[in-house]
Amino acid sequence: MTTPQSPSAEDSLIARYFKPLATDPGAFGLVDDAAILSSSGDDIVVTTDAVVEGVHYLATDPPDTIARKALRVNLSDIAAKGAVPAGFVLTLALRGKEDGWLRPFADALGEDVKIFACPLLGGDTVSTPGPQMVSITAFGRVPKGRMVGRTGARPGDRILVTGTIGDAALGLDVLTGGKAAAALVSDPAAKEALVSRYRVPQPRNVLAQAVRDHATAAMDVSDGLAGDLTKLCAASGVSATVDVASVPLSAVAAGLVARNTICVETLLAGGDDYEVLCTVPPAESDALIAAGKVAGVAVTAIGTIVAGQERPRFLDGQGRELTLTRLSYSHF
Amino acid sequence: MTTPQSPSAEDSLIARYFKPLATDPGAFGLVDDAAILSSSGDDIVVTTDAVVEGVHYLATDPPDTIARKALRVNLSDIAAKGAVPAGFVLTLALRGKEDGWLRPFADALGEDVKIFACPLLGGDTVSTPGPQMVSITAFGRVPKGRMVGRTGARPGDRILVTGTIGDAALGLDVLTGGKAAAALVSDPAAKEALVSRYRVPQPRNVLAQAVRDHATAAMDVSDGLAGDLTKLCAASGVSATVDVASVPLSAVAAGLVARNTICVETLLAGGDDYEVLCTVPPAESDALIAAGKVAGVAVTAIGTIVAGQERPRFLDGQGRELTLTRLSYSHF
Repeated sequence: MTTPQSPSAEDSLIARYFKPLATDPGAFGLVDDAAILSSSGDDIVVTTDAVVEGVHYLATDPPDTIARKALRVNLSDIAAKGAVPAGFVLTLALRGKEDGWLRPFADALGEDVKIFACPLLGGDTVSTPGPQMVSITAFGRVPKGRMVGRTGARPGDRILVTGTIGDAALGLDVLTGGKAAAALVSDPAAKEALVSRYRVPQPRNVLAQAVRDHATAAMDVSDGLAGDLTKLCAASGVSATVDVASVPLSAVAAGLVARNTICVETLLAGGDDYEVLCTVPPAESDALIAAGKVAGVAVTAIGTIVAGQERPRFLDGQGRELTLTRLSYSHF
Repeated sequence: MTTPQSPSAEDSLIARYFKPLATDPGAFGLVDDAAILSSSGDDIVVTTDAVVEGVHYLATDPPDTIARKALRVNLSDIAAKGAVPAGFVLTLALRGKEDGWLRPFADALGEDVKIFACPLLGGDTVSTPGPQMVSITAFGRVPKGRMVGRTGARPGDRILVTGTIGDAALGLDVLTGGKAAAALVSDPAAKEALVSRYRVPQPRNVLAQAVRDHATAAMDVSDGLAGDLTKLCAASGVSATVDVASVPLSAVAAGLVARNTICVETLLAGGDDYEVLCTVPPAESDALIAAGKVAGVAVTAIGTIVAGQERPRFLDGQGRELTLTRLSYSHF
């Protein structure tokens, strides 16, 4: 049990750091136990994702990037469902109340609240003797019945993915002193770019409307492209063929693959990409790619949905199937 | 970093233990990253509360009671806001995947899902090297604009509280070998009753409609009656006078106070009660008390809201003010 203290300590922590983020009238300035999400007949999309110190982020990661990652992994889910952010609640499990950690954490979270127009609605702040944890439940709005699920992929649909795949996994490799770190020892800019992809995802909320307009199924790539596509196909009762040479890689990632420092399978299973993976009828794939151009986000066709119950097949440039020893990251 | 494993391990954990709890169509059988809360024009009330091993529950507490406590502390907030449960999302931070822990946890949670008609909508399951943690965000529905807040208490309102106060704090005292444990050494039934109040709150959702109909302000008592009333008064810009002799105590608690084993101040600041504290215009207090009788829940008038900015005053049977050295439990 922790030591009981002044009744105002927890409340003053909330008031000092988080009240400025609670700009929505439904948050009641964080003085209530509960918030109001008004809906006006839209569907409310709900998603929840937690990040744990030592598991989803490193104890040495800066607090501002931890805040951004905690919110953005949820915003990425909202984007992939074709929804517009409506707000979030925050549960913080802290070892202590340290201004040096909380101030940059709250400031960065506040910046993202503005960037993504996603206000803080409420939360809970608890003490823990163990690793810190940030758990966020985020909300989005879609017109009734229009959330993009995982079950609508149909044979013939094109498989599209935003951004580039594998950089975040390489960023973690750099931080933990792996092969990529060794290969890039003389290229600090490349290392920094990869680390930034690991620490601060770039959720594709700018494409949510286009995803809703065109995608038959969608999800965000959080646990690894190979495993996540496998889940989408299973939910839709279909299979897929992926042209691995088409999977978009950053120049740094492509260079590491070309030099055989990293094998492409590692990137396909890496996780932490937070890109949108979706399936689109062939006649509409150009429209989604064009929407990406307007938004400044690459949208790339990487394969096709096919009939069947088998796991998706990943084919190299010679049409040979890659053997993936693992598909994604799993906690258990 | 945890070891990456089969992509299906985390999903199969969710499917095995938690899919049966996801009875709402908006949960999509837990195969999507997101759920749908449809609203039909009601306001959605959102609340979030986490319980941490070693802080909110003891490592030795049985998993079924941990599950119930994690959900019920949130249901208690929903009840106090005058709302009807609509569902919840669950984030579980686990040290490992242990069937002996997860099976009773999930079974008890499933029973409460039925008892309170509050389906599981989604969640996140993460590994942690530290203490286990259960974080729940729960949803309720109220007619638009009808959530009962904290700001509406007015001078003259009666202060009402449900159930009894202090039993949960005594239950924790029993479990940790404190004064109550020593005094009740020969009364195992009394000890068991107190422990049960600590481990398994009894949220007053059956009174939500009556609270909505009659209360000007309400909250649940989670951190201690004295501190929580202080918060309610501060939010409403009023003060209060509480007749401590009127505060409802169980027979066991009253006996311990009568024998000077425990002082009443400890009970007023104890926390974990999960009763509804509300303020009601004098003409309506009988109606709320009567609604409690119908529902089988004691509703007791304990004082009056008065004008002023001072902290609430707690008066003993002789009209003398008690000095409360602490008002409630605070994490920081």
